[in-house]
Amino acid sequence: MSTTAIETTTFRCIEWADETVKLIDQTRLPTEEVWLELHDYRDVIEAIKSLRVRGAPAIGVAGAYALVLAAQEFVNEPDFTHRLSISADEIADARPTGANLAWAIRRMTALVQSIDSPKQVIEKLTAESLLIQREDEEANRRIGQFGADLLSNGSSVLTHCNTGALATGGYGTAFGVIHTAWSQGKVKHVYATETRPLLQGARLTAWELVRAGIDTTLLPDSAAGMIMCQGIIHAVITGADRIAANGDTANKIGTYTLAVLAKEQGIPFYIAAPTTTIDMSLPSGEQIVIEQRNPDEVTHLRGSRIAAAGVSVYNAAFDVTPAELIAGIITERGVSKKPHTKSLKTLMERADG
Amino acid sequence: MSTTAIETTTFRCIEWADETVKLIDQTRLPTEEVWLELHDYRDVIEAIKSLRVRGAPAIGVAGAYALVLAAQEFVNEPDFTHRLSISADEIADARPTGANLAWAIRRMTALVQSIDSPKQVIEKLTAESLLIQREDEEANRRIGQFGADLLSNGSSVLTHCNTGALATGGYGTAFGVIHTAWSQGKVKHVYATETRPLLQGARLTAWELVRAGIDTTLLPDSAAGMIMCQGIIHAVITGADRIAANGDTANKIGTYTLAVLAKEQGIPFYIAAPTTTIDMSLPSGEQIVIEQRNPDEVTHLRGSRIAAAGVSVYNAAFDVTPAELIAGIITERGVSKKPHTKSLKTLMERADG
Repeated sequence: MSTTAIETTTFRCIEWADETVKLIDQTRLPTEEVWLELHDYRDVIEAIKSLRVRGAPAIGVAGAYALVLAAQEFVNEPDFTHRLSISADEIADARPTGANLAWAIRRMTALVQSIDSPKQVIEKLTAESLLIQREDEEANRRIGQFGADLLSNGSSVLTHCNTGALATGGYGTAFGVIHTAWSQGKVKHVYATETRPLLQGARLTAWELVRAGIDTTLLPDSAAGMIMCQGIIHAVITGADRIAANGDTANKIGTYTLAVLAKEQGIPFYIAAPTTTIDMSLPSGEQIVIEQRNPDEVTHLRGSRIAAAGVSVYNAAFDVTPAELIAGIITERGVSKKPHTKSLKTLMERADG
Repeated sequence: MSTTAIETTTFRCIEWADETVKLIDQTRLPTEEVWLELHDYRDVIEAIKSLRVRGAPAIGVAGAYALVLAAQEFVNEPDFTHRLSISADEIADARPTGANLAWAIRRMTALVQSIDSPKQVIEKLTAESLLIQREDEEANRRIGQFGADLLSNGSSVLTHCNTGALATGGYGTAFGVIHTAWSQGKVKHVYATETRPLLQGARLTAWELVRAGIDTTLLPDSAAGMIMCQGIIHAVITGADRIAANGDTANKIGTYTLAVLAKEQGIPFYIAAPTTTIDMSLPSGEQIVIEQRNPDEVTHLRGSRIAAAGVSVYNAAFDVTPAELIAGIITERGVSKKPHTKSLKTLMERADG
């Protein structure tokens, strides 16, 4: 299977090629496009932890490829299966909040059977990891269509963080909806929050939107309320890192705020995510572990201090938006509507078309 | 009158001394404490426009001192009064949204009588500008007490932007409430938003809070929703740049968002501002002119690009919080409660104690 045959026209942030993981270093964007070639699964873990690759679905793909690298490394070890299992746990632990990483590692490790030779395992894992990326991109194209169907002609939408090709196996989730709806003339303008502290909106989403030729306005996170007051936003669409069985959704810090503002202004608030982001083992958002990140992300920018010395910092990477604030959860199997507990259950039980 | 005799123990961001305006360059904080000595009123206008001095009450004080500099410059001109009047208009136009600048210039120019000699005008204006600063600081101390009375023991409060000595004639508005309540043991912890794009919270409020020994946590603006979800915030208190007769309040972009989040979480939201910030000539917030600032403030930080090239930017300096979201407007004459139209009218008609 060729790694580039599926969609040569679409930008991807991560590729499996020549038995290595190639990924664009997102911490260097938008000023530099630096591609990394990673041969060691530990380097992929580092890339995930330091956000060189980020976005729950893209992390899932990266984790899958990392496991192939681990299998390659241990191919001649007598305790191959044991060492592979340990590396699988290490990879799955790289970031706790996103659902797709643990899901991808579970899917990969479930393939390993005791009768397989290490080489057979490598073949299986390689094929499966490529399939995970391809399926994610295909799911996003379906999400794009389901999402576009929810929008009226001439809509302006507000989005948060980055959910494009940089965040996924390809095409994007909320970004995919915007892209599909733009190509159909349904979206006429996009408002993108800059998404502090790591500025994924300013650095990555704006970069992808400008690349795609989509009319875009960037705003500080704090300006979302003012923009939404003006009656010019017709929908808010974000991605998700983990969705509980009742529809409560963990996503980039600030998502909950946008959902509350949308409620106040009577604007529909949508989540766009593949079903791999849905964690039916969690009854509600209360069980979602929220990752706390380094205070330096808030107090420093590119190594330079921007906050007063001596101050404590709150730097949760995610927040949880209650299901009742979410008008629809757009998946590749259709759109979950309120009450989400029932609707998500139906979606998850439905065989994928 | 000595410029430092009133409150030698209190930090002030601006002083009139030796016939010049001395002010701390707030664009250099927190990494550098640089004091500027300005001899030309045009330099004060530049300092206001470029936010070397900012905060509606501090801008009012700076504008008053600027007018004294103009009077000094034109003292020997035959058309002294005319030139002073033109410079007064230039100063008043330096920033459009804050109420205090126009108020201070009106108060100053109202003193100028046709029978006065230029030297008499300078004497009057000098005395009046010093009085404006002293009165503002004294008003803030009363605001601090009225505000502290609203808080329960052991409160944690969330604040936005900078409202301390750096934003006012001295002591601070919302910051003054926090300072008084902290000294009384009523506030046990302060959460300060970083306040993008210009990071007044991270740079200035955190600097003042750390200086004052007040336990503080800094957070990205987008994290306010998550913090308020956790049941640990007992009040939100911000300053104001202009308050309309019905209580609608223009303040730093992001204030409206905090007010909506507070409503969602049942947390009281307060504005703290001297009555000089209240503009009874405006029936509501709809008439408030909102200043749009340079896109570079969002796309660049310290001269370095942080956003993708080619993207448009929305950079309103302020938003307007509707009066119905404001539990109380804390002034030096007491606290306006809902309905604010009636309560503000009563406050404004009350002779100052």
